[in-house]
Amino acid sequence: MHNLLLSITMAVGLKSPQTLLPITGIKLGVSAAGMRYADRADLVLIEFAPGVNTAIVFTQNRFAAAPVIVAKEHFVSTIPSALLINAGQANAGTGNAGIEGARQSCRLVADQLGCLPESVLPFSTGVIGDAPPMDKLGEALPECVSSSVEDAWIAAAHGIMTTDTLAKGCSRTISIDGETVTLTGIAKGSGMIRPNMATMLAFVGTDIAMDPTLLQRSLGSAVSRSFNRITVDGDTSTNDACVLMASGAAKLEPLEQDSSAYQQWYEALCEVLLELAQAIVRDAEGVTKFVTVKVEEGRNEDDCLDVAFTVAHSPLTKTALFASDPNWGRILAAVGRAPIDNLDVDKVSLHINDVCVLEKGNIATDYTEERGQAAMAPEEIVLRIGLGAGKASATVWTSDLSYDYIRINAEYRT
Amino acid sequence: MHNLLLSITMAVGLKSPQTLLPITGIKLGVSAAGMRYADRADLVLIEFAPGVNTAIVFTQNRFAAAPVIVAKEHFVSTIPSALLINAGQANAGTGNAGIEGARQSCRLVADQLGCLPESVLPFSTGVIGDAPPMDKLGEALPECVSSSVEDAWIAAAHGIMTTDTLAKGCSRTISIDGETVTLTGIAKGSGMIRPNMATMLAFVGTDIAMDPTLLQRSLGSAVSRSFNRITVDGDTSTNDACVLMASGAAKLEPLEQDSSAYQQWYEALCEVLLELAQAIVRDAEGVTKFVTVKVEEGRNEDDCLDVAFTVAHSPLTKTALFASDPNWGRILAAVGRAPIDNLDVDKVSLHINDVCVLEKGNIATDYTEERGQAAMAPEEIVLRIGLGAGKASATVWTSDLSYDYIRINAEYRT
Repeated sequence: MHNLLLSITMAVGLKSPQTLLPITGIKLGVSAAGMRYADRADLVLIEFAPGVNTAIVFTQNRFAAAPVIVAKEHFVSTIPSALLINAGQANAGTGNAGIEGARQSCRLVADQLGCLPESVLPFSTGVIGDAPPMDKLGEALPECVSSSVEDAWIAAAHGIMTTDTLAKGCSRTISIDGETVTLTGIAKGSGMIRPNMATMLAFVGTDIAMDPTLLQRSLGSAVSRSFNRITVDGDTSTNDACVLMASGAAKLEPLEQDSSAYQQWYEALCEVLLELAQAIVRDAEGVTKFVTVKVEEGRNEDDCLDVAFTVAHSPLTKTALFASDPNWGRILAAVGRAPIDNLDVDKVSLHINDVCVLEKGNIATDYTEERGQAAMAPEEIVLRIGLGAGKASATVWTSDLSYDYIRINAEYRT
Repeated sequence: MHNLLLSITMAVGLKSPQTLLPITGIKLGVSAAGMRYADRADLVLIEFAPGVNTAIVFTQNRFAAAPVIVAKEHFVSTIPSALLINAGQANAGTGNAGIEGARQSCRLVADQLGCLPESVLPFSTGVIGDAPPMDKLGEALPECVSSSVEDAWIAAAHGIMTTDTLAKGCSRTISIDGETVTLTGIAKGSGMIRPNMATMLAFVGTDIAMDPTLLQRSLGSAVSRSFNRITVDGDTSTNDACVLMASGAAKLEPLEQDSSAYQQWYEALCEVLLELAQAIVRDAEGVTKFVTVKVEEGRNEDDCLDVAFTVAHSPLTKTALFASDPNWGRILAAVGRAPIDNLDVDKVSLHINDVCVLEKGNIATDYTEERGQAAMAPEEIVLRIGLGAGKASATVWTSDLSYDYIRINAEYRT
């Protein structure tokens, strides 16, 4: 197994998007400011036509980055007209200078677009403690403005990457009253991933119109079913944000909550967010396995989530997954320390993909090490855990823990 | 930094014990049963003279191993006269067959010693899902009995090892009323370490006499200050146990709780347990750093512990420690997601060893990357985090997260 040392990890079951559909009313411009990365786009400007409504979910980490603090301030004071995203410097833990830098970047955008600085929201991702150099940002900004078009989602998806090995994005179309409605989203994220009511950075556009309150509620609900169900390493970022932009360009009345059209759109939104969330896990730092942890037969959904996240965070479960080793004892030990009441170990079952490993707390009669090894071999693994306590279920998605996770994070700043 | 791949990790600041003092009334015998490991002791018998009192703290993991279940049953029914420990198979997740095996091992010991099977307590450590082969155990047991002497703590410390690279043990003597009182303990453990009201396996003997209720309370209290303050990977074992044996061989009256003699002995007990607990972290799987996380100025001890454990479990903090990278942003991000109320990020301070990194949420004015790198260079690192909220404090000890942690746990069963 020493050749594991030499393995080069690649994203699991993921390709860079080849086509992302434009959203009328939302333009994107990119440029290479050279703030941290050479020879690639690292600055993205998203511009809204009048009438675009926006909903945002931010990180719950108390050490919110400077751009998060400024974006929150601006978001409650004015209707947003543009987003500015830089990749390379997180502008977190940078104190008052960082706050001032974030404000200044908004003023620079406002000067270019002729809008209020408060209508610009800043987003940053990269190394904590570093602020984006304002001179380079200012020099690169005009190109963002001049290159801005509606059909630039793929370029923007590349422009927001940090340790991501692939750009992440997807589109969906649905038909409402004969009108084609489009949703397009992009995301970045690979490590420091255990979103808590937010994600790394994700930007999703759609051309329906919607009351801002309902738009915000829709985003919160969809995030709780997607980005809040993934984890790479349990570490929550200081910079997470997920932005939903509704342009209203489709020829439809604003969607009302109890309509079937809303339901259709909401399901498509959930699909887009889930595909982006899973893409982050598929491209997790050092990933070699894409792992679905599905907990069933719980008393309630919270119990199922607690068990699923305990298993998904267990370093010993994750190293066993990396080794394709059906070391079910580690999974069992993680279930056994999950913070839920009244776990009856004599009712617990475990499947690895289609192979039943445990029934009612005991090894399944037809389980063999060979069957377990075969079940653990694929790149995509489903761990299905039955608690035998009720009818609730919950699913989270995670990655394994590999040499490359260590390498990437030991070398990140060098 | 690629040469990290080739590093061989070694315990940090730890040597195998050269001398462990015998405890009158407690004999230890070892033998090499070849149950998993070749050419080394893997079976240990600890025999008590009449009058030895015993206190035990067991794992809180709900998937308690078969020997834990049997040992608990026996412990409440009869005064223990012997402990049997095997290394290599955890006998956890082995169902009814595992329980029967644990009972049978007690009967085998009882036959040899002429005692009740219920007065024998079984302990196992090793691979979950594997049970010790009874034939080999039965064949090796007579040598444990025939070799049993009071001065065999070092041999026993070696006989209980699994992925440990060094044996762990220590002794203390104190003088009470002119009489020398001795405490000697041994422990094993290296991964799956986040004891929760217990540890991996630890066996501590002393020659004072004490009421069993007070002995149990003393052990519980001392464990909460030592084994429950360490973590390697956050994973709690199915087999943890810590046993305290008081032989009463010293020529003293039983120690009473409010006496100065008790206090003196209790402090020595805490010292022994803390040294053993820290030895487990110093020999953690893949360790290259011994890390003390000290959280100060908390509203209460629980807040301090929550912050300390969140930092100690953060994979990104642990990989930064492995890389000797003063990536304080990761530490800050971990503090920011700790599950405590009312964290005021503008009051948080951070020291790495003697270097002040953050004051009141901002980078210290005299901090430089060079000073941070120098502070991160040693094998022993103290992360001191001030919350600026009160006067409570708490300390936990942990290791870094290295390539070798992955290698050891990816290869464990091969």
